[in-house]
Amino acid sequence: MSLTNRQWTLKERPTGLVGREHFTWGEQAAPEAGAGQMLLRVLYLSCDPTQRGWLNEGDNYIEPVKIGEPMKAGGVAQVVASNMDGYAPGDFVQGTFGWEDYVVTDGQGPFPIHKVSGDVPLTYNFSAWGVTSLTAYFGLLDVGALKTGDVVLVSGAAGATGAAAGQIARIKGAKKVVGIAGGPDKCRVLTEQLGFDAAIDYKSEDIAARVAELCPDGVDVYYDNVGGPALDAALLNLAMHGRIVICGGISSGYSSWEVEDGPKHYLRLILNSGRMEGFLVLNYMDRFAEAAQQLGAWVQSGEFKVLEHVVEGLENAPDALQGLFTGKNVGKTIIKVADPA
Amino acid sequence: MSLTNRQWTLKERPTGLVGREHFTWGEQAAPEAGAGQMLLRVLYLSCDPTQRGWLNEGDNYIEPVKIGEPMKAGGVAQVVASNMDGYAPGDFVQGTFGWEDYVVTDGQGPFPIHKVSGDVPLTYNFSAWGVTSLTAYFGLLDVGALKTGDVVLVSGAAGATGAAAGQIARIKGAKKVVGIAGGPDKCRVLTEQLGFDAAIDYKSEDIAARVAELCPDGVDVYYDNVGGPALDAALLNLAMHGRIVICGGISSGYSSWEVEDGPKHYLRLILNSGRMEGFLVLNYMDRFAEAAQQLGAWVQSGEFKVLEHVVEGLENAPDALQGLFTGKNVGKTIIKVADPA
Repeated sequence: MSLTNRQWTLKERPTGLVGREHFTWGEQAAPEAGAGQMLLRVLYLSCDPTQRGWLNEGDNYIEPVKIGEPMKAGGVAQVVASNMDGYAPGDFVQGTFGWEDYVVTDGQGPFPIHKVSGDVPLTYNFSAWGVTSLTAYFGLLDVGALKTGDVVLVSGAAGATGAAAGQIARIKGAKKVVGIAGGPDKCRVLTEQLGFDAAIDYKSEDIAARVAELCPDGVDVYYDNVGGPALDAALLNLAMHGRIVICGGISSGYSSWEVEDGPKHYLRLILNSGRMEGFLVLNYMDRFAEAAQQLGAWVQSGEFKVLEHVVEGLENAPDALQGLFTGKNVGKTIIKVADPA
Repeated sequence: MSLTNRQWTLKERPTGLVGREHFTWGEQAAPEAGAGQMLLRVLYLSCDPTQRGWLNEGDNYIEPVKIGEPMKAGGVAQVVASNMDGYAPGDFVQGTFGWEDYVVTDGQGPFPIHKVSGDVPLTYNFSAWGVTSLTAYFGLLDVGALKTGDVVLVSGAAGATGAAAGQIARIKGAKKVVGIAGGPDKCRVLTEQLGFDAAIDYKSEDIAARVAELCPDGVDVYYDNVGGPALDAALLNLAMHGRIVICGGISSGYSSWEVEDGPKHYLRLILNSGRMEGFLVLNYMDRFAEAAQQLGAWVQSGEFKVLEHVVEGLENAPDALQGLFTGKNVGKTIIKVADPA
């Protein structure tokens, strides 16, 4: 039986908003596993804002996607055929794959492939203890040095990382957790489902004025996923020795590492003896297992709610990625490629 | 004998560059010391960029100067008459005074008055171990967490704080110290007198390109006194886990805490897991004595060169302050008001 491999390859590099027009759809025979390799069927793909950056040329923390190559993405797959010790057909594995049905791998690479359990929803490897949750975990606790009693502000709070950051802050004893999100529906999710104390709708409210109102003693930790006016609002309202965790800047569109308008209030870092710190979750790879275990325990106890936005079908992958920049998702965006065999 | 007190009071708040037109010159009889007070003759006044901020309304770390009040400034004075225990005529004291000849004080205040020695040049209380040197000391060593072997970049490097930061970095074992200053004369001072390894003239050179050339492995600590393109150049060239010490932003003119153009490359903090941190030297008041003693030892050993820019005469105080923003000074600007009695 010959398998057909559908795939999206990069046609041209987007300069602004990414979309379907930047990729080419193709179908060809799936590759076969050689000696020491295995053939994987991709089931789910993670869809993350940071992937937009992988489409740019220039400095980055991973090799950019090349023109003509399948778009890269974290994924969960099932072993179809294996010439690798320790892996058998039917096993579930996680790794960095591409926007395609089938992958041949020797298990190596910057993010080595590892097995995942089939006893919990496979999507939890992205949504519950996936890289966005790990990012929130280390960003908030290590970079942000969250302390019990801190007032915490989170932007992009209805996104995968923001929703995780707000929940972890609450679980870890923040005095108050305020989220910034776009639109009343997302804001309701924050306060009604995720336990945020308050939500600011940046589409209809003055962020800086609302932060001042909700956090009269200032913000101890600001977890920033967006940049722009939200970052300036946090700088204006930072408590003494406040920490700003620079996790992302989705308002810039990730067309490059350069933004059009940098934070106009960064000199407030002097006045409030504050800190603004960036990080890559890859710095914490040796502690991923510890954090994933903790997140799993919180999911099991019901303290941490899992929010998923599942886009059906590999053919819709470019729209799923675009949707991250047009506010379509609540929680973790996941592309469902196929059901397990 | 009745003493005449000359003084500069604030006429109106500057919105941009500060100048003579924002102050009123007046002369009246000097005040007299009451019970528990002493009368001081001001000898020298410290002239610092941060004083420009004291002229703005709104949030600050000290009470802004009020319209009609003498302009505030750190100073060294001599006791003329004393009704205070422990102070006798002829003693030298340091404290926060004003742009005037005579001050009556009870020694209290946010920066309590203390005696200084007449055995070393009185100006050393500003230039050698004054607040700008203390700022450089704590900013570089504590906030910047300087380590032996670090590559250090300093902007405003011919100013009082920058010159101190560069020298302290060298003394503390930095691998390379690069300074940014305006014009070939200032650049020569850095490399020929202060032991900087290299200097970048921001008036004639592309800062980012020169930093990349001089610091091919990146900048570990950037001590920022200016903001603007120098800050962006540092962000672009930051080493992994690099630290940016936000000490000042003189390129903004200090008209407010808001700048017109924030750092466009702040997202680089993600890529290089970098940190940008502000501080007030007042946070370290309980360690001033320790730092001053260390600076004094370095001055005595010849490792730390003292650079002073003395402006003669109280009548020129507004020009001295303005000169900080138009690049007139090399080293610490000091206003000489009178000789000791």
